[in-house]
Amino acid sequence: MAKRVAIVGAGVCGLASIKCCLEEGLEPTCFERSDDLGGLWRFTEHVEEGRASLYQSVISNSSKEMSCYSDFPFPEDYPNYVPNSLFLEYLKMYAKQFDLLKCIQFKTKVCSVKKCPDFAISGQWEVVTLHEGKQNSTVFDAVMVCIGFLTNPFLPLDSFPGINTFKGQYFHSRQYKHPDIFKDKTVLVVGMGNSGTDIAIEASHVAKKVFLSTTGGAWVISRVNDSGYPWDMVFTTRFQNMVRNFLPTPIVTWLIARKMNSWFNHTNYGLVPEDKTQLREPVLNSELPGYIITGKVLIKPSIKEVKEKSVIFNNTPKEEPIDIIVFATGYTIAFPFLDESVLKVEDEQASLYKYIFPPHLQKPTLAVIGLVKPLGSMIPTGETQARWVVQVLKGVSMLPPPSVMIKDVNEKKENKHSGFGLCYCNALQTDYIKYIDDLLTSINAKPNLFSMLLMDPRLALTLFFGPCSSYQFRLTGTGKWEGARKAIMMQWDRTLNVTKTRIVQESPSPFENLLKLFSCLALLVAVFLIFL
Amino acid sequence: MAKRVAIVGAGVCGLASIKCCLEEGLEPTCFERSDDLGGLWRFTEHVEEGRASLYQSVISNSSKEMSCYSDFPFPEDYPNYVPNSLFLEYLKMYAKQFDLLKCIQFKTKVCSVKKCPDFAISGQWEVVTLHEGKQNSTVFDAVMVCIGFLTNPFLPLDSFPGINTFKGQYFHSRQYKHPDIFKDKTVLVVGMGNSGTDIAIEASHVAKKVFLSTTGGAWVISRVNDSGYPWDMVFTTRFQNMVRNFLPTPIVTWLIARKMNSWFNHTNYGLVPEDKTQLREPVLNSELPGYIITGKVLIKPSIKEVKEKSVIFNNTPKEEPIDIIVFATGYTIAFPFLDESVLKVEDEQASLYKYIFPPHLQKPTLAVIGLVKPLGSMIPTGETQARWVVQVLKGVSMLPPPSVMIKDVNEKKENKHSGFGLCYCNALQTDYIKYIDDLLTSINAKPNLFSMLLMDPRLALTLFFGPCSSYQFRLTGTGKWEGARKAIMMQWDRTLNVTKTRIVQESPSPFENLLKLFSCLALLVAVFLIFL
Repeated sequence: MAKRVAIVGAGVCGLASIKCCLEEGLEPTCFERSDDLGGLWRFTEHVEEGRASLYQSVISNSSKEMSCYSDFPFPEDYPNYVPNSLFLEYLKMYAKQFDLLKCIQFKTKVCSVKKCPDFAISGQWEVVTLHEGKQNSTVFDAVMVCIGFLTNPFLPLDSFPGINTFKGQYFHSRQYKHPDIFKDKTVLVVGMGNSGTDIAIEASHVAKKVFLSTTGGAWVISRVNDSGYPWDMVFTTRFQNMVRNFLPTPIVTWLIARKMNSWFNHTNYGLVPEDKTQLREPVLNSELPGYIITGKVLIKPSIKEVKEKSVIFNNTPKEEPIDIIVFATGYTIAFPFLDESVLKVEDEQASLYKYIFPPHLQKPTLAVIGLVKPLGSMIPTGETQARWVVQVLKGVSMLPPPSVMIKDVNEKKENKHSGFGLCYCNALQTDYIKYIDDLLTSINAKPNLFSMLLMDPRLALTLFFGPCSSYQFRLTGTGKWEGARKAIMMQWDRTLNVTKTRIVQESPSPFENLLKLFSCLALLVAVFLIFL
Repeated sequence: MAKRVAIVGAGVCGLASIKCCLEEGLEPTCFERSDDLGGLWRFTEHVEEGRASLYQSVISNSSKEMSCYSDFPFPEDYPNYVPNSLFLEYLKMYAKQFDLLKCIQFKTKVCSVKKCPDFAISGQWEVVTLHEGKQNSTVFDAVMVCIGFLTNPFLPLDSFPGINTFKGQYFHSRQYKHPDIFKDKTVLVVGMGNSGTDIAIEASHVAKKVFLSTTGGAWVISRVNDSGYPWDMVFTTRFQNMVRNFLPTPIVTWLIARKMNSWFNHTNYGLVPEDKTQLREPVLNSELPGYIITGKVLIKPSIKEVKEKSVIFNNTPKEEPIDIIVFATGYTIAFPFLDESVLKVEDEQASLYKYIFPPHLQKPTLAVIGLVKPLGSMIPTGETQARWVVQVLKGVSMLPPPSVMIKDVNEKKENKHSGFGLCYCNALQTDYIKYIDDLLTSINAKPNLFSMLLMDPRLALTLFFGPCSSYQFRLTGTGKWEGARKAIMMQWDRTLNVTKTRIVQESPSPFENLLKLFSCLALLVAVFLIFL
């Protein structure tokens, strides 16, 4: 059994990994390059090498009930979508609550992770770190890699003919911090992911003019879903997932397009995805259509040519003067401390069994946590991965033989779809619940809805029809949390309490009363007729 | 017949009035206090006495097709909702096109408008003006008052106990220009009209925390309506208006509440109107729910008490620290240059026949243009008023006897509803089309849909089911415009062209094709069975 585990990175996945190790009696040592925890979620005014970089206004994409650690809900007064500063606070509370800080070595860069000479037998790794100019080499029984995938900017300048002649300013979205730089400028944002869209909108508050260029288009989802409920609490339910997986793909695609267009017609707003049958990653933004209809953000197709002070877009004759270009073109995956023989990134994909384990190693003692893009939340996904990995490291859970794993990985790879930067794992996007359930099954923690229907029908129905919030993953088996049931039953209260901050005594409208009266009468008549 | 007409103010209504006078052979002289035209729509960095004051980010509330002068569409490349700077450009184009500038005396304040001694016979007015320190008195045959109602701030400090002890900054929304002043402050905006909501949202981009306090709540409408069409192009149709007027009020209220809550549940967001049966003026804002769900704007009930550095809200125990209070509490009506015997403002209402003519004057030679709050657009309303007024001044259109007019005014007054500042004319809010049709009937310019159905059915159906855009008011009779029909038929093209700035060749989904195929087959079978 592995005992000493090296964890690389103290972001959301790193913290979950430390906790899982501690709970299962392993000895984690977490190496964090920067001087504090939080990874991606720690905003700093300056970009730091080797760490993801936020702009100041970033807000979480999934709601607080869906994106918390499964045994640690967000504080009750947190808004439904959490701004980065509060998110970092939460991560610090988590670290404090489970006493994780003691395992973290800050300002420590991992230089290399290499198999020990006796790896085939021991499965051990030699981890070389650098702390304040001093190199250190330690042998670990296992390594959990938790470095995320938003660190290495993807800036495909070759795709933009003439960019070298451009006299204005241009930079990757990773460099963006505040909108002030756009004051009175004409701005072009290239790439319509979540960052690109956010930046275009923020720029429009101060800029002279803002263009948002997108090659493939995208569906845009509002955080404020039907009747105002958080989108993921409505979308990510076991029931809806079952329906989506049950229906043939063309019908699902058609239904999704209908749904997306009911908010605003994506064709009329120039946003419609080029290939609607491919479910590209949607953009989460409540504001974009309001900014397009008021002319604050202008949607453009891909760039044909960049000139000294202007840009020509494809299929549009007019040359648009541009002062600043922001390339929101995404990120590439890289594992600089790992040898290619251990983990190779090809064509923007790393071959990993269940997106975690390199399938060809003699011993499964290296795992990558959080290298997925769930259409759900990162935290519960990474956390569940870590829970399973720890069981594998302990030898409780077994991996299939390499040949089976390699076959599985290759099948998944074929699902890959194209686009700028990292577009990893189409399958995961539609099957968030399925993926997590799969991991939970491996650690015997998947809730059994059938047996629950007999024991606790209210809970079972809430699990099936309600939001698939992360507490579900702690109801039973390994890592069970006593507070899980209560957290599930109170999830809507916590959601509504923070927005319902002005309470009005409501009396139903006279017509509503009348409707109710008629319904009762109709029911009475029906009962009367049946028993007549 | 009146010939020389004094027009007070060169805003949207003043400009329309000049044009109407010129077209009908009258001699208008427009007195504009400031040094340029545009009234409300001319943004300046500093508040000017006697003129409405905008904040820099103001965007029109009604869409360009619904809010233009009826014979002068906005330029084709204008966005659907026009920012104030472009709006001003448009007004300047209008003034140039119809050569209105020659009639405007800038920097000229109207000091008094008094009946001439022989008013009972001549109907004339003595207008005293002040230009560069020099007073001037001129006799006019008629006066058109076009000063708007967003000039005199309503700041009911008595309603906020303790405000005198407040050590922070407070001001009326009229003073607000840019969000910079809110940087890192805790801001409270009082009053949830369009301005209050806009200011709260803008403040939240830079402030530490933002509260928006509302006593009565309000329905919030998005500019981006069903499928993304501009809200007023969907809402303001003759068909919908007929349905709304035909159904009993409780059903209409219930349907409207259902519709409003389908975007987001107003109760869950703390916004639900206290009295849902009263259709208070809705707030037009596409962003507010997105700001509430992310905690950027916190909705609060009315203020109980203001302290030195904090505020206590009703029904909430917690005291909230506040740095700045913005009172978005609306405006009061005032006619400082008119004697009360001519026009008296009581209880925030001026008694005006059809919201235009003081009903008790011996001669109908004074008219107020634009003192209405249509749930539609101001420009076509004011313009149609002016068209009618000019016909009355010419003696072509006659007013009923004073007794009839006074009775009518008193009936309308009873419809008044309560709230901060100006809440004038509930009736107008629901009956925009009816009000304008009524005016058009008086000048014989109301389109006759029945006869049109025979002559030009396509146009008739577009008028009935399509947006009630202002071109409809120029199809026939006095002031007919040859371009009206074309403008109506092309209104959707102009609307969509400016947002559809990235065009994708779309192929229907396989499922859609299948659906079509099945529909055709079903139709064939049906036809076959019928003829069998």
